[in-house]
Amino acid sequence: MKIAILPGDGIGPEIVTQAVKVLNALGEQFELETAPVGGAGYEASGHPLPDATLQLAKDADAVLFGAVGDWKYDTLDRPLRPEQAILGLRKNLGLFGNLRPAILYPELANASTLKPEIVSGLDILIVRELTGDIYFGQPRGVRECPDGPFKGQREGFDTMRYAEGEIRRIAHVAFQAAQKRDKRLTSVDKANVLETFQFWKDIVTDVHKEYPDVALDHMYVDNAAMQLVRAPKKFDVIVTGNMFGDILSDAAAMLTGSIGMLPSASLDANNKGLYEPSHGSAPDIAGKGIANPLATILSAAMMLRFSLNKEEQADRIENAVKKVLAQGLRTADIYEAGTTKVGTEEMGNAVVKAL
Amino acid sequence: MKIAILPGDGIGPEIVTQAVKVLNALGEQFELETAPVGGAGYEASGHPLPDATLQLAKDADAVLFGAVGDWKYDTLDRPLRPEQAILGLRKNLGLFGNLRPAILYPELANASTLKPEIVSGLDILIVRELTGDIYFGQPRGVRECPDGPFKGQREGFDTMRYAEGEIRRIAHVAFQAAQKRDKRLTSVDKANVLETFQFWKDIVTDVHKEYPDVALDHMYVDNAAMQLVRAPKKFDVIVTGNMFGDILSDAAAMLTGSIGMLPSASLDANNKGLYEPSHGSAPDIAGKGIANPLATILSAAMMLRFSLNKEEQADRIENAVKKVLAQGLRTADIYEAGTTKVGTEEMGNAVVKAL
Ligand SMILES: CC(C)[C@H](C(=O)O)[C@@H](O)C(=O)O
Ligand SMILES: CC(C)[C@H](C(=O)O)[C@@H](O)C(=O)O
Repeated sequence: MKIAILPGDGIGPEIVTQAVKVLNALGEQFELETAPVGGAGYEASGHPLPDATLQLAKDADAVLFGAVGDWKYDTLDRPLRPEQAILGLRKNLGLFGNLRPAILYPELANASTLKPEIVSGLDILIVRELTGDIYFGQPRGVRECPDGPFKGQREGFDTMRYAEGEIRRIAHVAFQAAQKRDKRLTSVDKANVLETFQFWKDIVTDVHKEYPDVALDHMYVDNAAMQLVRAPKKFDVIVTGNMFGDILSDAAAMLTGSIGMLPSASLDANNKGLYEPSHGSAPDIAGKGIANPLATILSAAMMLRFSLNKEEQADRIENAVKKVLAQGLRTADIYEAGTTKVGTEEMGNAVVKAL
Repeated sequence: MKIAILPGDGIGPEIVTQAVKVLNALGEQFELETAPVGGAGYEASGHPLPDATLQLAKDADAVLFGAVGDWKYDTLDRPLRPEQAILGLRKNLGLFGNLRPAILYPELANASTLKPEIVSGLDILIVRELTGDIYFGQPRGVRECPDGPFKGQREGFDTMRYAEGEIRRIAHVAFQAAQKRDKRLTSVDKANVLETFQFWKDIVTDVHKEYPDVALDHMYVDNAAMQLVRAPKKFDVIVTGNMFGDILSDAAAMLTGSIGMLPSASLDANNKGLYEPSHGSAPDIAGKGIANPLATILSAAMMLRFSLNKEEQADRIENAVKKVLAQGLRTADIYEAGTTKVGTEEMGNAVVKAL
């Protein structure tokens, strides 16, 4: 089994190194091949997603991704900026199904900015559509405003779109995920304002007929943003579009106060996937050896479960992570008095030992 | 001075009655005229925004609005649903500047789901553009998908657009609001993905030249959603588009835990405005006499300040509200042990007495 390793920028290389160490310690035969992406891709060959990197990702059975981005690339033209690599990988690999768990580990309950009774035991899953919506819709650009009171001025514009089949396939992913959990699905839309999301709501309602064992409800995106703050534990699985999912999944992650712990999976129609931590490249702490590698290590576990069909090995890693937390080991981002502060490498070693 | 009073549905009439009582107690000469809107407009004349109601709103110097919506209208065709009234009023009256303060009153610090140290003293202002963006952009609808892998299927679509002048005028509102506060403005965009918001960012940056005393920063919307949860007090004024503003202003309101306290103003180019509580019509508690009228009373105060040029009377109302809170009076939504629970009318009477 071939895994493409794309460390990227900032803390990416450090945290991916630890995840690779954990993978290698499992006693399985993986073929790991590394390639530059993001700012590193730009440095290496003038483009954030070099052809060779994309080809490697296409050929592999799964992709383990670190993080991309650094302030020093902020002045590049948009198509050359690091984050275009992640958009390009999603689109080219057809990774339409993004699974983002927001879980609060009992040992880390204090890390949240929310009161413990509101978030302790939090375990929600956000299913975000990842290759459609206003992220990729054409036409888009800057043009002369064609009508209305600002006619003749310049205007920026984008197109939000969702085709029926696009909604159906992500709805199936979400209903099936809900079946494996508490069997409750909330579809988040803005059907009171947007045609796209009235259509979304209608299609999701239709797909629901195939999943009578799952309870479906619909919620407007503004209300969902409120309910995530007010009573996040009421959610089980949330499904939504690319743009709303971008916002809500980050808000949900931050509820836990420990975004350094949260993995994510982005899957295609055949469960090939790209796996990455939910956090970013944190250039401010890059190279200091203090970044939390656990989100990346847990992303590797998701990879074993969803793409490589190694459920048991995934469990082993997840249990090892729980064990090091129980042992009181903490990187700086989740440190609190009474626990033991460790660096990136020590944390990776501890997970290997706990396997 | 003529004020249009549009109570609407659910708890709308009850809370507006209290705000009107407070206005009448100020000793000023206001001409108040009431008209049905939302579900009540539909009942009265078959449309959520009856012509006579729109005309009244146009003729008035300001509009005091309650809330609209009730489950019983959920099955109506979209153009007939209550919330279309609020979209119609915004568009027809040119109310492009939405001011939504998120303030946590010290007496209500416990109401928040966030830890006191994270939110106590919270005082941020969200400036949301209200007549543009994907809310009104044409074309929109359901059509045959013209290209790509889903070609030929049905697809829902909408258009996000912002013209230069539209961005400039809301930026001016936001910079001027920041000048009266802590002189810090965060412009929220998604310039890394959307053409509309790269353009937005460029124009806001340009308008900044006229406000050298205000510190401007730019933040992606997903990050803004996270920072609102992580460290909301770091914000002073936030400016953003209609769609992102819808989501972020509701999230910010919920941080306080006391959305029943939060007023809002929607202003046109001449400071004529519509004033409404940030919460909804709460049909589940309508008619029970337990709704919190303070957000509507504080909306009346905003109306006096922004549209009617009666700063002193606005201060009087705001101080009266602070006084009743200090007296320990609480409606059910903000009640906690050790305070005195009161109903909608008692709360209104207490504010009048405290004037
Ligand atoms: C980097 C950016 C383009 C990306 C997105 O908006 O999807 C990121 O925020 C994410 O959620 O993975
Ligand atoms: C009712 C709805 C159309 C409206 C909006 O989305 O603007 C509401 O959520 C608001 O924020 O006032």
